[in-house]
Amino acid sequence: MKDIYEAIDRGKEKFIAELKDLLRLPSVSYTGEGIPRCAEHLCRWLQGWGVSARVVPTQGHPVVLGKVEPPGAKRRVIVYGHYDVKQVGDLAEWKSPPYEPAERDGAIYARGAADDKGQLLANAIAVRVLKEMGRLPAAVTFVFEGEEEVGCKSFQAFAEAHREELRADLYYASDGPRHISGRPTVRLGNRGNLCMRLVVRNEIGADVHSGNLGELVRNPAWDLVHLLHTMKDPEGEALIPGFYDEVAPPTELERRALADIPGDEAEICRKLGISRIYGPPRFTVNEKLFFRPTLTIEGFHCGMESTIIPGQAMCYLECRLVKDMTPEGTFEKIKRHVEAQQVPGAALTLTRSSQANKTPLDHPTVQPVLDAFRRMHAEGALDGPLLVMPISGGSNASTQVFTQYLGLPAITTNYAQPNNGQHGPNENIRIDHFMTGIKMGAAALTALKG
Amino acid sequence: MKDIYEAIDRGKEKFIAELKDLLRLPSVSYTGEGIPRCAEHLCRWLQGWGVSARVVPTQGHPVVLGKVEPPGAKRRVIVYGHYDVKQVGDLAEWKSPPYEPAERDGAIYARGAADDKGQLLANAIAVRVLKEMGRLPAAVTFVFEGEEEVGCKSFQAFAEAHREELRADLYYASDGPRHISGRPTVRLGNRGNLCMRLVVRNEIGADVHSGNLGELVRNPAWDLVHLLHTMKDPEGEALIPGFYDEVAPPTELERRALADIPGDEAEICRKLGISRIYGPPRFTVNEKLFFRPTLTIEGFHCGMESTIIPGQAMCYLECRLVKDMTPEGTFEKIKRHVEAQQVPGAALTLTRSSQANKTPLDHPTVQPVLDAFRRMHAEGALDGPLLVMPISGGSNASTQVFTQYLGLPAITTNYAQPNNGQHGPNENIRIDHFMTGIKMGAAALTALKG
Repeated sequence: MKDIYEAIDRGKEKFIAELKDLLRLPSVSYTGEGIPRCAEHLCRWLQGWGVSARVVPTQGHPVVLGKVEPPGAKRRVIVYGHYDVKQVGDLAEWKSPPYEPAERDGAIYARGAADDKGQLLANAIAVRVLKEMGRLPAAVTFVFEGEEEVGCKSFQAFAEAHREELRADLYYASDGPRHISGRPTVRLGNRGNLCMRLVVRNEIGADVHSGNLGELVRNPAWDLVHLLHTMKDPEGEALIPGFYDEVAPPTELERRALADIPGDEAEICRKLGISRIYGPPRFTVNEKLFFRPTLTIEGFHCGMESTIIPGQAMCYLECRLVKDMTPEGTFEKIKRHVEAQQVPGAALTLTRSSQANKTPLDHPTVQPVLDAFRRMHAEGALDGPLLVMPISGGSNASTQVFTQYLGLPAITTNYAQPNNGQHGPNENIRIDHFMTGIKMGAAALTALKG
Repeated sequence: MKDIYEAIDRGKEKFIAELKDLLRLPSVSYTGEGIPRCAEHLCRWLQGWGVSARVVPTQGHPVVLGKVEPPGAKRRVIVYGHYDVKQVGDLAEWKSPPYEPAERDGAIYARGAADDKGQLLANAIAVRVLKEMGRLPAAVTFVFEGEEEVGCKSFQAFAEAHREELRADLYYASDGPRHISGRPTVRLGNRGNLCMRLVVRNEIGADVHSGNLGELVRNPAWDLVHLLHTMKDPEGEALIPGFYDEVAPPTELERRALADIPGDEAEICRKLGISRIYGPPRFTVNEKLFFRPTLTIEGFHCGMESTIIPGQAMCYLECRLVKDMTPEGTFEKIKRHVEAQQVPGAALTLTRSSQANKTPLDHPTVQPVLDAFRRMHAEGALDGPLLVMPISGGSNASTQVFTQYLGLPAITTNYAQPNNGQHGPNENIRIDHFMTGIKMGAAALTALKG
């Protein structure tokens, strides 16, 4: 691999220039700003080095779909990334304009630098380097999504319409930060999620004067408080009957992987600035994060500061789901529990969900890639020992489509640093992380020679 | 009184025209729109029929202060009203423009018609009729406030600065609707209130990604839910230690007055469109409304629909207080209870309060006025038997100043009909109620011959 890494190092200035070109184009999925132009730019860029690429419309923002077919390739890899970004938020908080990429302290600052244009481009460049050197061993299908930041709304339908084109042996993606310890990170799964809205309405359906009617009319805010209290105890255990039924303990292989993931509670508390880790103390922090489901109040809204009994109270609830929990099954359990409390005017709605996905640590396609990363470290091309997370705390709706619907094993690596400002102001990617990402991409593809 | 009632009937067209003049002037306390001009208009109107009047500045909106001194008067009455109004809200919901008074179905429609310009003017016209007939037996001090709709913020300071000028034997005011039964209504007190803000912050002080950090960080929304659950049971009893300590049962006189106030639960449920009255069933609806304190969640706000653990959760709490409960004492009890729960990051703040006030049913100055109203009904000048409410469910910060700080007995009558649209669109006052109000004012003042 040494010659490949050297070729990558020689291309540094060019790659940075290409990244800056991409970062100059807004592509905000929430507002749609710049989406078509950015998709077009990526498509032409792929075509420019011989990729058969096109912009595929969906019900929402388009997908950029591209294919590289080296002669004699036995395997095919989906290289996934998302070209859409979050809104920039308060411009006053940015040290340099979000769409004018700026280099400072060895990093490139711009919206999308870390999430996900920098990481998307690193993997695509890795494919190009291998192709140009005549060393690309596997066929590649690029799938660049435009709706990741708004929940991959059209992705399942896109996958169903292009099922044949998406056949492959492996899904490879890079997004998000390395583990908080800073070690190079591979994730082999995501928790699922289940987002719900829980509403309680009073019988009048309108705000009521709190003096004239005393509290003669049921107050939906109190009703919702008491209802929520039955759903989770103060120590963080969900009280929904059967909620933990499908929760499996880590396998022996996973337990060994967990042992390798830093999880020192005192250290994490210090880094986060909190006094203790929330939740039942009988689980370690990594068990909680990777192997336990959650039940979270994301938001609670009702009434105002104005001597009223609110007409309705509403909260947003979210579960992170682990391996064998289905969004539908968990929703049913929660719905049954809510109904059993017989709170007048209470209604639970499922708003959005994705299933947990997990690729086995010893999957035959995955194993050589992990070994390649470990060799990289041994050879000095990776700045730390590899950290393999059997699953991650977060969720990813499009990864779920690839793993669940299309049945692919999935590797997600993380080329950004933990403190990358993603979704916030001053988003950035360290240039050495960007370059390491290109090398990891090249190492992963090379390992698929098969 | 017959000749007085006849004189009032003869003035009907003039009085309606004067009311319409007043209703054409916006006077929105929340925005300040039109406040100075409306105060000036009222002042000149009073001066126009011989009242020594002036506009008195306060730290907020001005008070219109006027005095009528008939020769030989032994007693003095404060005639209070408020000239400020609520915002008009959505204009599309008004059938006629809110500041162009329109007559429909025997009522005058305009912002302020019921709350409180119509009722303020009725009492002032009653004084003028008696004065013009040479039959005014008591001195009158008009106090027309401009901040009632924003909580009488400057009124205590105004009263302290004009304590001497506000000396009197009785406080007489008209505001709000008759009892839901439609019977002519007198109120002899108000519950107090105590408004608070309860905040729980997480240790990080910012929203946190709910996947990346699982629920490793305490969720202030759950903390606030569990904290609130300790403060009130689902049946409506407050669980704050000592909360009901100062709650006295109705006196024998009050119990007799209560017996006369319609409180049929089935009827009230039918009128409100609810299936049952909330709160402990061992109290009647009128006991709940007049003799029990409340603990209400007015609003609850945190987070959003976005896979986060909120940085803080906040709710607005309100108590309606009965006679011997002080805002400070009740706040202390609630604060102690909150502190005892030891929820990290929880903080309770008092935002606003007023003390309950109650004038005894057998007060020697009040008794003759109630008798005069009863005679009115017997003589056919009042459209229903008098209903005396020993206290009302609502609160009134300026009444509290007169009763508590200035030590006056207080009578509040209600000249508007229950369905008057106050604070909402299409506010109106029935013309017959407006005319009856003038007669009640005249009867009340005449009864003070003493």
